[in-house]
Amino acid sequence: MGVTILPDLGTEILIPVCAVIGIAFSLLQWAIVSKVKVSPTPANTGSVGGKNGYSDYLIEEEEGLNDHNVVLKCAEIQNAISEGLDLSVWPYAVDVLHEGATSFLFTEYQYVGVFMVVFAILIFVFLGSVEGFSTKSQPCTYDPFKTCKPALATAAFSTVSFVLGAITSVVSGFLGMKIATYANARTTLEARKGVGKAFIVAFRSGAVMGFLLAANGLLVLYIIINLFKLYYGDDWSGLFESITGYGLGGSSMALFGRVGGGIYTKAADVGADLVGKVERNIPEDDPRNPAVIADNVGDNVGDIAGMGSDLFGSYAESSCAALVVASISSFGINHEFTSMLYPLIISSVGIIVCLITTLFATDFFEIKAVKDIEPSLKRQLIISTVLMTIGIAIVSWVALPPSFTIFNFGTQKVVKNWQLFLCVAVGLWAGLIIGFVTEYYTSNAYSPVQDVADSCRTGAATNVIFGLALGYKSVIIPIFAIAISIFVSFTFAAMYGVAVAALGMLSTIATGLAIDAYGPISDNAGGIAEMAGMSHRIRERTDALDAAGNTTAAIGKGFAIGSAALVSLALFGAFVSRAAISTVDVLTPKVFIGLIVGAMLPYWFSAMTMKSVGSAALKMVEEVRRQFNTIPGLMEGTAKPDYATCVKISTDASIKEMIPPGALVMLTPLIVGIFFGVETLSGVLAGSLVSGVQIAISASNTGGAWDNAKKYIEAGASEHARTLGPKGSDPHKAAVIGDTIGDPLKDTSGPSLNILIKLMAVESLVFAPFFATHGGLLFKIWN
Amino acid sequence: MGVTILPDLGTEILIPVCAVIGIAFSLLQWAIVSKVKVSPTPANTGSVGGKNGYSDYLIEEEEGLNDHNVVLKCAEIQNAISEGLDLSVWPYAVDVLHEGATSFLFTEYQYVGVFMVVFAILIFVFLGSVEGFSTKSQPCTYDPFKTCKPALATAAFSTVSFVLGAITSVVSGFLGMKIATYANARTTLEARKGVGKAFIVAFRSGAVMGFLLAANGLLVLYIIINLFKLYYGDDWSGLFESITGYGLGGSSMALFGRVGGGIYTKAADVGADLVGKVERNIPEDDPRNPAVIADNVGDNVGDIAGMGSDLFGSYAESSCAALVVASISSFGINHEFTSMLYPLIISSVGIIVCLITTLFATDFFEIKAVKDIEPSLKRQLIISTVLMTIGIAIVSWVALPPSFTIFNFGTQKVVKNWQLFLCVAVGLWAGLIIGFVTEYYTSNAYSPVQDVADSCRTGAATNVIFGLALGYKSVIIPIFAIAISIFVSFTFAAMYGVAVAALGMLSTIATGLAIDAYGPISDNAGGIAEMAGMSHRIRERTDALDAAGNTTAAIGKGFAIGSAALVSLALFGAFVSRAAISTVDVLTPKVFIGLIVGAMLPYWFSAMTMKSVGSAALKMVEEVRRQFNTIPGLMEGTAKPDYATCVKISTDASIKEMIPPGALVMLTPLIVGIFFGVETLSGVLAGSLVSGVQIAISASNTGGAWDNAKKYIEAGASEHARTLGPKGSDPHKAAVIGDTIGDPLKDTSGPSLNILIKLMAVESLVFAPFFATHGGLLFKIWN
Repeated sequence: MGVTILPDLGTEILIPVCAVIGIAFSLLQWAIVSKVKVSPTPANTGSVGGKNGYSDYLIEEEEGLNDHNVVLKCAEIQNAISEGLDLSVWPYAVDVLHEGATSFLFTEYQYVGVFMVVFAILIFVFLGSVEGFSTKSQPCTYDPFKTCKPALATAAFSTVSFVLGAITSVVSGFLGMKIATYANARTTLEARKGVGKAFIVAFRSGAVMGFLLAANGLLVLYIIINLFKLYYGDDWSGLFESITGYGLGGSSMALFGRVGGGIYTKAADVGADLVGKVERNIPEDDPRNPAVIADNVGDNVGDIAGMGSDLFGSYAESSCAALVVASISSFGINHEFTSMLYPLIISSVGIIVCLITTLFATDFFEIKAVKDIEPSLKRQLIISTVLMTIGIAIVSWVALPPSFTIFNFGTQKVVKNWQLFLCVAVGLWAGLIIGFVTEYYTSNAYSPVQDVADSCRTGAATNVIFGLALGYKSVIIPIFAIAISIFVSFTFAAMYGVAVAALGMLSTIATGLAIDAYGPISDNAGGIAEMAGMSHRIRERTDALDAAGNTTAAIGKGFAIGSAALVSLALFGAFVSRAAISTVDVLTPKVFIGLIVGAMLPYWFSAMTMKSVGSAALKMVEEVRRQFNTIPGLMEGTAKPDYATCVKISTDASIKEMIPPGALVMLTPLIVGIFFGVETLSGVLAGSLVSGVQIAISASNTGGAWDNAKKYIEAGASEHARTLGPKGSDPHKAAVIGDTIGDPLKDTSGPSLNILIKLMAVESLVFAPFFATHGGLLFKIWN
Repeated sequence: MGVTILPDLGTEILIPVCAVIGIAFSLLQWAIVSKVKVSPTPANTGSVGGKNGYSDYLIEEEEGLNDHNVVLKCAEIQNAISEGLDLSVWPYAVDVLHEGATSFLFTEYQYVGVFMVVFAILIFVFLGSVEGFSTKSQPCTYDPFKTCKPALATAAFSTVSFVLGAITSVVSGFLGMKIATYANARTTLEARKGVGKAFIVAFRSGAVMGFLLAANGLLVLYIIINLFKLYYGDDWSGLFESITGYGLGGSSMALFGRVGGGIYTKAADVGADLVGKVERNIPEDDPRNPAVIADNVGDNVGDIAGMGSDLFGSYAESSCAALVVASISSFGINHEFTSMLYPLIISSVGIIVCLITTLFATDFFEIKAVKDIEPSLKRQLIISTVLMTIGIAIVSWVALPPSFTIFNFGTQKVVKNWQLFLCVAVGLWAGLIIGFVTEYYTSNAYSPVQDVADSCRTGAATNVIFGLALGYKSVIIPIFAIAISIFVSFTFAAMYGVAVAALGMLSTIATGLAIDAYGPISDNAGGIAEMAGMSHRIRERTDALDAAGNTTAAIGKGFAIGSAALVSLALFGAFVSRAAISTVDVLTPKVFIGLIVGAMLPYWFSAMTMKSVGSAALKMVEEVRRQFNTIPGLMEGTAKPDYATCVKISTDASIKEMIPPGALVMLTPLIVGIFFGVETLSGVLAGSLVSGVQIAISASNTGGAWDNAKKYIEAGASEHARTLGPKGSDPHKAAVIGDTIGDPLKDTSGPSLNILIKLMAVESLVFAPFFATHGGLLFKIWN
């Protein structure tokens, strides 16, 4: 037991400095991206501003770098998407669309705001009731000889940290969306200069988001801890229990972001594709398609904002899980500040490591051809992992005493600093393995996706069968990777080990987010190129970026799921500790029924979200068909589609349909805890964790594979691919069906599931004292 | 503690008498079915035998009940399917096909035989090694003051009972197939007289199979127990431990039957449909389709034989699980013979109850119209459940002492006889609920399937999305039903309670099998009608029978899955008892990694089986396309297809592809037990159970719903259905794609999964003493 090399003052300085560096780097990237001008010089504005109608935009070939026409169009479209509406490309729709899209965000935040208030009250009332709203200090839970702050204080501070977490999450998502919409038109414009330039803009923009979120999350957490400490003083277990509210706030917002955004984007996407690509044979993102604006708004609402909130939630939760366990271990008991903040120091160093890693993509290497894109992204994963391993080693050496004890379900377990290093490192490397496996199963450079593409030869049915099989198969190695990291970290350092393994996986979150956000940005860039009527060659470049983006999106989801599995296990462990359960024995009826029902929840949840997307898409399809059938001249491009109705369909569907799955996730722990008690709740958490992680991985990989199988046929880059194409061939049509089915799997159900498992765990942790005191009503009656 | 009302002698008489009654009833039904003559009078044979070619068989309308032409054709086709080949309808193929189909069965049994021998040796060697092949008697595990038979005896008797179980299972499957193929042509012929007559023939044939299997399983088990008792004498725990081999033998054969048969039938079915229905627009089962014979052979190989083996396995295992727990409870310790055989008495009474129930379908009520079919089948479920509840009450009253103790992980738990009645009854009624829910989600009489059909309006993609969502949703209520029955039975009577709850669910197995086997028989009957060129009206009747058959098949699968969940939990509990583990704590690293990896196994397994079906179907499609493209006159019916190659593709695929998934299931418990030990194995069993049951239910319901959504559109029985049809319309094509995707889900992956979870549990139970003694090598090295 003892002193760390890094003094407490050093920690106090190091963490905020790294956070500020992260934010500064993010702003620098932004500045570089903004050098790509999308506004033409004022002199030309007048001459172009007056034009509208499609024929103007169908420019045949465009390589002149400074053509104001194209630049202006990109600027206009970018504005339209950024604000979810159209400004002047199709002026008639301005008012309707502006109102529609703004009202989506506004309505969503209204609903979420109401939820936030209600839930904040619940937290306060439930936690306050644990000691009957007494304002007196009480004997500590883990050391009855000391005096700790009252439960009412925990209730109040948990409520505050919940609200702060929720706000940070919403802001993270919102900023991500702003950055992405800022970047997409610039990516399109740079695509005229070459694929390398476009890649760098997209990647830098992703980095803006990655660093801003990572640094922001760290900074807010650091500030809250320091502020709460003013009240709590030496009662660290009370302090860090209150901090868990931060994770709950973050994740609950992420849930609505993922589900609401996911339904929004996929209703529009599926609807647009089914009529546009399959029936009418017009290209993706063609401006004649009435659902095209809704689709592009959706990419940003769903993929970017949702994913930003999601990973922020994972990060906040794994930090909270580690901190709450540490607070009742020797770090907390002996008030070793530097060791206590070890999780935050890891994240701080992570920001610096990711900063260096980013330079490899943007400055040290150059992308010259399409084939360089995926290796470059893969290099990012490898470099960040290798550097971070060194970083973790240094942090473990300077910020930890050589030996310390960790709370292990009632006992204290002796841990060496090198063991904790191994815990973090195993999480980090498991993340890399998950990333690589995901890439292997979803990139069209390898045989799995090519086999799926090949199966399109015999139609959509075999494509779907092969795609589902691919998704199921892709689960195997990630699960072994997760199992091994759990085994190692659990064996070395109990639940604290699992929590820091999760942090290890998320320590390179800035890079992870950068390559993940890159995907939707490229997707939108392609959409803009199509809508602005840019040349085939430019569209090919953005398609190549987009194909790599599908893979990186899948990798990002792999990280999100892998870390969610570790995080929720750590939270689960913390919950069990806080609820004072000593074992969770499968062979007791209370636990087993929890386990089997918990394993069912991801199916229930998926059924809801998929059905929501399906129903909304049906409405969208009928509306798009109606417009094509009833608006004369729409196919010929002489009449304007009614975008507003399509936007409204997506908006209404997502707002209405996000409530039942949201309620399922948020209410399950409350209902189970109150009526069935903490043992059954333990079973539910374990069951939903081990079952949900499988569906989440398979759903997102199946979807990614179908999308890229379609792109593989469309690109026709190999002899084999050309035998399946071109666009419009029977195999291609089969591939489009697969792609469409994959949409809700990979962008709605799949990614929401990891929030489900994390959120139920963190909610249980926050409410643990309440459940332990007042829970299990049904069995109290029964017995 | 005490005496039962039913004397031991009564038990000794009751069980075999009920079994014999079951067999007699089965033979009686057979006799009634065989009254439908398919062979024409000898005088006519000559004149028809010489004909061949299609034009002869395209009889326009046929209502004359004694037309020898049609009767003869049906006889010929029935022969062809029965022996997997063609006798004289298309004489050129006789030799090739005869050889091909016979060689499938022959090859499958060869492989399975080799496996059986190897595994029998493994069992003997592994169990014998527990006490170093010592032939001396040892102190008993559960009572060290007594002397028990040596481990070598358990090894030898377990091996024998394994082999007997395997043989009984193969015989059950084989007999089922024989009966089904005997019945299908008769069903077709009766369909000319009306839907009611056809229904009764199909249902009676199902009953033949149901009663034969149930009675046979009971009788063999009863005989083995009595024979083994000659050696074991008073060492009942040794006796019933040896008996567990019977369950393992039964289930391991069922695995190969389900997987091999499932791949065979679906490769042929998918291949036939994709080219025939989708591309060539010819009806299902059209004799011009080269894959049609393989498809019809497959229905019997896969659905009937596989399912028969499967449910026999469940029955054997739940009996074994109950017996092994009872043997170390007061029944076994005090040598109360009647109480000890309570599980077998329940099954005996079940046979009598099912016998009465069957009369309601065949004699008391009459089917007059298509709409009466489903209610009649539903009535079967209700009547058997209500009667059986009374039966269980009586048995619990006469065959159990008022109070007794049950082994509960190291302690003895006091149980009243009425509590045990509740355990059995809750399983029985949970089965009914599962049956009803399955019917609701898969029958086209209700909104879920109609919604799926409606989603075909917008194409295959929405159909698939809705179908998957339906499957996921259909999991909810069955899981709650299973959870409640586990909770009740577990709370009242520990693992014995769970085992008898499973037996309760399976107590009406004869009826369950009857309505399940009815499905493929009707399916084949439809195929024969099509091939024999019978009228549209007759085909409509067989289609109606078949649509109800899809629902009953799904119900049968629901029973199989529900009982598998209970059975494997009971086996798991017995394993834990036998391996002398006291708790299975999720929050230990060894158990948790088992849990998450176990939850992954069903995905791995499904990936293998679906990919196998997909690959085999691809080959089949290419072969069928090749024949249509290269054989002139095939479409016009003037040239003969090459059925032999298609049969060979299915045969090769199923034999080759059943090995990897089979190995996965059979080797996992061995590898985990030997290298990771009993704690991790416990986790694997719990994980695969809670995860597998969900996938199994959702897969089989999704597939059933797609199949019936297609039939709903084809039948066009309502205003809504007619707006989607007719055959060949775009919505119908989308429905066919869904149906095709559902094939491997509902007939290959889904039903195999319940064998996976049962089999791993029973295998662990059989090898438990070996794992407990020599297992966990890796951790022994690590520590």
